[in-house]
Amino acid sequence: MKKIEHLGIAVSDMAAAREIYTALFGAPYKEETVESEQVNTVFFQCGPNKIELLEATGPDSAIAKYIAKKGEGIHHIAFQVEDIEAEMARLRTAGFQLLNEQPKRGADNMRICFVHPRSANGVLIELCEPIKQ
Amino acid sequence: MKKIEHLGIAVSDMAAAREIYTALFGAPYKEETVESEQVNTVFFQCGPNKIELLEATGPDSAIAKYIAKKGEGIHHIAFQVEDIEAEMARLRTAGFQLLNEQPKRGADNMRICFVHPRSANGVLIELCEPIKQ
Repeated sequence: MKKIEHLGIAVSDMAAAREIYTALFGAPYKEETVESEQVNTVFFQCGPNKIELLEATGPDSAIAKYIAKKGEGIHHIAFQVEDIEAEMARLRTAGFQLLNEQPKRGADNMRICFVHPRSANGVLIELCEPIKQ
Repeated sequence: MKKIEHLGIAVSDMAAAREIYTALFGAPYKEETVESEQVNTVFFQCGPNKIELLEATGPDSAIAKYIAKKGEGIHHIAFQVEDIEAEMARLRTAGFQLLNEQPKRGADNMRICFVHPRSANGVLIELCEPIKQ
């Protein structure tokens, strides 16, 4: 685990949330829709870390379900890793439950894998490795 | 806002949580009880960032109340600032609701101030400035 790559925040109204987080961190550096996850994302930089706002684009989105159950707030925390397959293998051996068997493609040009919140005191952890270009 | 200083995670059983987070991040670098907040804390380093586990030491602790209401999970996110009074003034002017009028003493040798989750899409934000020694 090299650092906190980003913090993912579930929001119900992206326009309003973008304004609030711009007041905190300055203008976002990226906006991206991830069709496979049914989310709109807006990214802010904060030194070595990023803040990702997440808005559902449809009712089946994990973000829509999260907000329906828990309300707006911190949805997940992502850690940058050097080698995602190696880290997935290490955590699997240590007894952590992974939510995907293979890395999948995430926002912001990353290969990602989620760890079940049951494995980590209610915290949804994302592992992410930047895709080399 | 210079970086994410730490992520605060509310846990109900520190011994069990310490074991899980040691598997993720290696051994903790600090353990500290903050009597004024009725919490035990254990800190892990992750590159430029820290993970803080929080366990209530009494029923009036904010952590006990949080877990009773929402269960274990991410409690707050702390951002390091250069000048906490200046940042508090800036955010107050921008319309954010601060939870304390003056900086107070936090764990890990910090002066801190919390921003109300209502001001930031359900996210409890902590501002913190390291105390110069």
